[in-house]
Amino acid sequence: MRAVFYELCGADPDRRFSPYCWRALMALQHKEIEFERRPLEFTEIRSTLGEDIKTVPVLEHGGDKISGSFEIAWYLEETFPDRPSLFGGEGGLALSKFLDSWANVTILGGTVRLIVSEIHGILGEDASKYFRETREKRFGGTLEALAENREEKIEAVRKALMPLRMTLKDQKFLGGDQPLYADYIVFGSIQWPRVASTLEILTDDDPLKDWFERCLDLHNGIGRAAAPLAA
Amino acid sequence: MRAVFYELCGADPDRRFSPYCWRALMALQHKEIEFERRPLEFTEIRSTLGEDIKTVPVLEHGGDKISGSFEIAWYLEETFPDRPSLFGGEGGLALSKFLDSWANVTILGGTVRLIVSEIHGILGEDASKYFRETREKRFGGTLEALAENREEKIEAVRKALMPLRMTLKDQKFLGGDQPLYADYIVFGSIQWPRVASTLEILTDDDPLKDWFERCLDLHNGIGRAAAPLAA
Repeated sequence: MRAVFYELCGADPDRRFSPYCWRALMALQHKEIEFERRPLEFTEIRSTLGEDIKTVPVLEHGGDKISGSFEIAWYLEETFPDRPSLFGGEGGLALSKFLDSWANVTILGGTVRLIVSEIHGILGEDASKYFRETREKRFGGTLEALAENREEKIEAVRKALMPLRMTLKDQKFLGGDQPLYADYIVFGSIQWPRVASTLEILTDDDPLKDWFERCLDLHNGIGRAAAPLAA
Repeated sequence: MRAVFYELCGADPDRRFSPYCWRALMALQHKEIEFERRPLEFTEIRSTLGEDIKTVPVLEHGGDKISGSFEIAWYLEETFPDRPSLFGGEGGLALSKFLDSWANVTILGGTVRLIVSEIHGILGEDASKYFRETREKRFGGTLEALAENREEKIEAVRKALMPLRMTLKDQKFLGGDQPLYADYIVFGSIQWPRVASTLEILTDDDPLKDWFERCLDLHNGIGRAAAPLAA
């Protein structure tokens, strides 16, 4: 049975923006898996996948449903040990967990308030209502107010990427000569505002831009094929 | 010929505080190397090791002098591949470079201004003169002024350790069940203010404290044997 990958989309099923889904999607490509993509809006997840599953990505494979980006990457590494490694060994697996936490706190945490109003704008009617309610409650403010002065606020995220710049000065990918799941963790985090927002984390003169462009080209340019949100 | 490890010390040769030296020292222990420790003050480095070498740690081994903490760790991994690995594979090596940059920017960069006045206080006469001149020039202020309101300022460093807390909630060490060089990178960064300052990065209720205590116990408690600076 062919694998099925459930990922998040907006009103336009081609606008697939979730950072976690991008991480898992790149991992599937890296492992050379054949799979079918099934985009879902926020409000279609439970009705499609069952009451127990609240979020995507979900990978359906061999009768199992694997939920969560890191869980999917780990499942793929265990299930397909002979295909290109996502972690480069036990040490790489352990340290990828740090990278995951770091990217979640620093990039996702630092950016989410600044782009929730635009994410709201790309969703269908039901999903946008659900999204406004849950996010305004979570972040304690209207989506629009959260985005105020965001060009100033995003500077803190850009500054926090310094360790990435230092690392990628000496190596092509975080994984070394070839990308590893750690690259996809960070790539997904930056692809998210690229697809769902007009806010750009990487300025044109950011040395990280070269690395990001390389990631957009990986796996037949699957990342680049996702259109940026028009300003 | 026995290996010789040159490390930084204060006026008291037992006060060995450099974060980079701690990283390399733990790596040497991890690789079960027999070596002699030679503490040097800042102003003794060139006269002992030659004009080309400005900083320690330096490892003298088999006729070579290896300079720099990461370089020493890498040298040990290459030279002693059959002993416990410091990186856990190629992926772990690549991602350790990110950890290194992250710790240097976040922990060392966030802490150094707050403890330079105390570091100055533990140095001998020549070294303390050199240290004040170079550090006041580098940081643009008197050592004493840099430390003002440091209890408030250190909060930013504590907050930035969140990704470590998240990672170490699920695993005993950054390296997984056993420590890797990544653990020593962070350990050295926190051991540094423990030995050279009365400022504590980890508060008693910080969940990272358990991990740090575990690191102090490693390798026959070599970390714990270094006395904290008395308040």
